[in-house]
Amino acid sequence: MRCRDVLLACGVIVICCSPVLNAQETASRTISLNETLIQYSLIASLAAGDYGGGTQLSQVLKEGDFGVGTFDHLEGEMILLDGTIYQALADGTIHKPELTRSTPFAVTTTFDADGQFEDFNALSLEDLDDRLNKQLPRGNSAYAIRIDGEFAALSLRSVKAQTPPYRPLVDVVKDQSVFHHKMVKGTMFGFRCPQWVGTLNVPGYHWHFISDDRTIGGHVISCVFQGTKVEYDQCTSLLIRIPESEMFDDFDINSVKPKDIDVIERQSHPKP
Amino acid sequence: MRCRDVLLACGVIVICCSPVLNAQETASRTISLNETLIQYSLIASLAAGDYGGGTQLSQVLKEGDFGVGTFDHLEGEMILLDGTIYQALADGTIHKPELTRSTPFAVTTTFDADGQFEDFNALSLEDLDDRLNKQLPRGNSAYAIRIDGEFAALSLRSVKAQTPPYRPLVDVVKDQSVFHHKMVKGTMFGFRCPQWVGTLNVPGYHWHFISDDRTIGGHVISCVFQGTKVEYDQCTSLLIRIPESEMFDDFDINSVKPKDIDVIERQSHPKP
Repeated sequence: MRCRDVLLACGVIVICCSPVLNAQETASRTISLNETLIQYSLIASLAAGDYGGGTQLSQVLKEGDFGVGTFDHLEGEMILLDGTIYQALADGTIHKPELTRSTPFAVTTTFDADGQFEDFNALSLEDLDDRLNKQLPRGNSAYAIRIDGEFAALSLRSVKAQTPPYRPLVDVVKDQSVFHHKMVKGTMFGFRCPQWVGTLNVPGYHWHFISDDRTIGGHVISCVFQGTKVEYDQCTSLLIRIPESEMFDDFDINSVKPKDIDVIERQSHPKP
Repeated sequence: MRCRDVLLACGVIVICCSPVLNAQETASRTISLNETLIQYSLIASLAAGDYGGGTQLSQVLKEGDFGVGTFDHLEGEMILLDGTIYQALADGTIHKPELTRSTPFAVTTTFDADGQFEDFNALSLEDLDDRLNKQLPRGNSAYAIRIDGEFAALSLRSVKAQTPPYRPLVDVVKDQSVFHHKMVKGTMFGFRCPQWVGTLNVPGYHWHFISDDRTIGGHVISCVFQGTKVEYDQCTSLLIRIPESEMFDDFDINSVKPKDIDVIERQSHPKP
C-alpha cells in the first residue's frame, strides 16, 4: 500500500468514526433498555379502535426480544419470543409476518430473568394470577414472565383483521376465535403491569402462548398446568412510545373504561 | 509524515474506535433520551405522601438538563434549567442543592426546541394554557416548553420540608408560601402532559420559574406577560422510572383523585 493510499484509508476511518464519536459525546443521554418495559401506544387507544399503522415490526425487534401485541388492522395476536415475531391468526394458524408490517399496540422487553419459581401450578388463570401476586417481589413494579412446560389445558383466542371504520375492540372480541387445547408443550409468557397503569396498559396479567413446535398460539384466556418453571424479569422503567398520528391525537382517554380492558383481555365470552 | 508514522496513526485511530464500535453493536438495545420526557416516580404517589428518598440528583442530571420537581422531604421546588439544579425554598430563597440529595418526584427532558412562537401574550395561567393548546402541533403528545422574557406579574409558591408521618400533599399545600412579583425577567418553563397521563403526572401544564439573576423562583400559580418568546420541544416517548421502595409498593393509585392533582398543582388557595 502506498503512502497516499494509507492516508486515504485513514481519511475513510476518520470520516466513519466521526458520527460514532459524536454519539459517544452524548452517551450520557442514552439509556439501556434491558430493565425497561416498552409499550407502543396505549391499550386504551387500541380499545377505542386505533388499529391503523403504528410502529414497524423491524423497529420493535430493535428494542426488545420478548413481547405481546397485535398487528396493523388488528390482524391476529403478536407473539415475540427469543427475538422472533410470530402472528397467530383467527383461523388458528401461525405465521412469521413480514417485518415491514406494523403494530398499533405492543408491549415488549429484553427478557433477562431476575428470578424463578420451580414446580409451579395453576388451576386457572385467576389462580395463576393469585399465586404470582403472592410470590413476585414488588407490588407496584412491572414484570415480564415466562412459563415453559407442558400445559394440561389451554384456551387461546385470536381476532380477524378489521376494516375501517373500525369498531371498538370490546365489540370485535365478541367475534373472536377461541381454540381449546390439551397437553401441549410450549411457552406461556407476558407481563404483569401494576394497577397504576390504569387504561394505558393492562393492569394485572396479560398472557400469550406459543407451542414448542410453533403450530399453536394466541392470547391465553384460560389455562391449567402443574410442575412448570416460571421465570420473571423485573422492569424498573416503563417506556411509552407515543404515536404521532391524527387518529391518536383525536383519541379521548375517557372514552375507554377499565371494565372494557378487562372484557377485552380476560373474558372468553363477554357478558351482555 | 512518513508512511510508518501514518500507519501508526491509523493504528491509534482504529484502537480508539474499537470500544465505540462495540458500543454501537449493542446500540439496538439502548435509546436516545433526546425526545423523551422522563419522570421519576408518579405525581400520585407524591400526592399520597411519598416524600422520602427517591432518585439522586446526580442521576437526574445524567438523564436530562431541563425539568421540574421537588426534593427529599418535599423541601422546596426543583428548577432544572440549562443543566443546573436550583432549589426554591419556602422562605423565598434559591440555593444550589448538593447533588447527593434526592428527589421523590421530578419530570425532566433534554431540551432541544422543535419550534417556537414569537410575541406570545398571556393574561393568566388559564389564558396561557388555552393559547398553547391552540398552537402546539399535537393534541395527545407531551411537550417541554420554555418561555424567556419579562413577566409583568407572577405568583410563585414553595413548600416547607416535611417530617414523617407525612401528610398528603393536598394538605401540605394549604400551608404553602406564596410570593407575588412584578416586572421580573427570567424563564418560565415546564411541561404539557396529555390528558391520558391521568394521575401518573400532571395532565395539562406544569410550570416553574427562575429569574435571570437566580434570586427568585418557584412553582407558578399565576402569571401575566406579553411579547415573549415561547419555545417547545415535542417528546415522542414517556419514560417512567419506577421506585423500588416499600412505600411505593404500598401505594394505591385509587387513593389519589384527579381533583387532588388539580388542587396541588393549580390552586393558590384551595377551596374548602
